[in-house]
Parts: sequence; structure tokens; C-alpha cells
Amino acid sequence: MFELAPEFERDSLWLADWPLCQLRVQNDTNYPWFILIPRRVAMVEIIDLTEQDRAQLWRESAHLSMFLKVAFQAKKLNVAALGNMVPQLHLHHIARYEHDIAWPAPVWGKAPAQPYTETQWQQLKQKLALLTIPS
Amino acid sequence: MFELAPEFERDSLWLADWPLCQLRVQNDTNYPWFILIPRRVAMVEIIDLTEQDRAQLWRESAHLSMFLKVAFQAKKLNVAALGNMVPQLHLHHIARYEHDIAWPAPVWGKAPAQPYTETQWQQLKQKLALLTIPS
Repeated sequence: MFELAPEFERDSLWLADWPLCQLRVQNDTNYPWFILIPRRVAMVEIIDLTEQDRAQLWRESAHLSMFLKVAFQAKKLNVAALGNMVPQLHLHHIARYEHDIAWPAPVWGKAPAQPYTETQWQQLKQKLALLTIPS
Repeated sequence: MFELAPEFERDSLWLADWPLCQLRVQNDTNYPWFILIPRRVAMVEIIDLTEQDRAQLWRESAHLSMFLKVAFQAKKLNVAALGNMVPQLHLHHIARYEHDIAWPAPVWGKAPAQPYTETQWQQLKQKLALLTIPS
């Protein structure tokens, strides 16, 4: 049965269950930072997924990316599967701006997380109401 | 016409032209670090590619990833499209080890590049002779 690594429960918030992935947001207002986690057991690398699941992962990734590009007016998207610390397969999608705290460096390890306040969380959810479920 | 950003000419070495991407290796022996650059004009985000090109990108990425996993016995693969500094669309594929100089952090900005010596370069090319061209 699919289980989420405890680090995701601790550091991110549930947004939606898509056909393949769970969509979560990193609990860090420094960046609009979303994570897709395939709801499959014991996956570590992208190539551990079946070809069919991989195609679905990329559909969901493109769907999320297009939304981030438009709704967050990102200067650049960072899309990455690293997993050195949390091996459970997950794909980061981060909207980056020239004025963000880590620019132009990658975000990892750059600045302490700034958790969402209740108001910020409600604003985020309002924005994400426009995000449809990908097929 | 497809042109390579000058940073790639400076920091990486040509290995092969695949159906969609140019395959290059970062000139840094700290890590087995490969880069796929779609040979298309004016692409910045993965979602800038046509759906067909995107499917081909992921085929080539999976082909390279499977090779890295086996031939380099990587503990973990890092697959990432960042592009904050060099906007031309490119996809990093880095074989990571618990004993590498940046582990478990991402590699970017961690350690000065250690360029390949002639001997190391010949050894790399010998290893890569096993890497077929993906369909």
C-alpha cells in the first residue's frame, strides 16, 4: 500500500490526489514549491515506474508546470527529481523569480522554511482552485 | 538553427547527438554528470517542447538513466531541469554516491569543477562505448 515518507508529512501539505501522483506544497512561502509523489509502492527512481506510469507522471508534471507558469508568473520553473535525503520518488516543481531568496541558486539548503500562515494558506488554496485535475 | 549556449561549450564536452538531444558530459570528475540538450531553437522550459518532442526527451532521459544506474552503479540519480543561470533548456543527469563531495546536497555550487585529464577522458569514452543511441 502506498505510504508517504514521514518527511513529506512534516514538511509539506496535501493538496490533491491526481490519477498517479499526490500533489503537495512544500510548507515554505519562500517559493511556490510543489511536489508530485507517484502513489506507487517502493519507487525511488523515475525509471522504476512502468512505462505507462512514467507517461502519466510527465502528463501530470506538464499540467502542473503550465499552471505554475501562468498562475504564478514564474521567471523560470525548476523541475527536479533528487531524493538524496528522502528516497521516496518525488518530483519538485518550483516557480522561481529573480527576486526570490535563493536566486539564481537552486533552493535546497538555502534559506530556512517560512511556513504558511492561515491567511497565506487560504490565498494559496484560492489560487489553486483554478488548477484542474489532469486526465 | 540550433545553437549551443556558450556556457555549455565552456563547461562540458560533446558526447553524442541523439534523435532529439545533444548528450554532453560536464567537465567535472567530481561526479558522473551528463546533460541532455534538446536540439531545438529557443526552448527554455520542458513544456516549451511539443508533446512529441517531450515524449522523446523522456525516452532519451530514461535510456541515459538506465545506463547510469548500471554502468556507474549510482546510489541515486539526480534528474533536473533548473536553468536559472543558463536558460537554454537542458536536463541534468547526475550519478550520486554517498562518498561524493557534495552528498547528500545537490551538486550545484558545492565544489570547484575538476576537469577530466586525458586519461580520465579516454576511460570515460571507453565506458560510454556501451551506451547505445536510443530510438
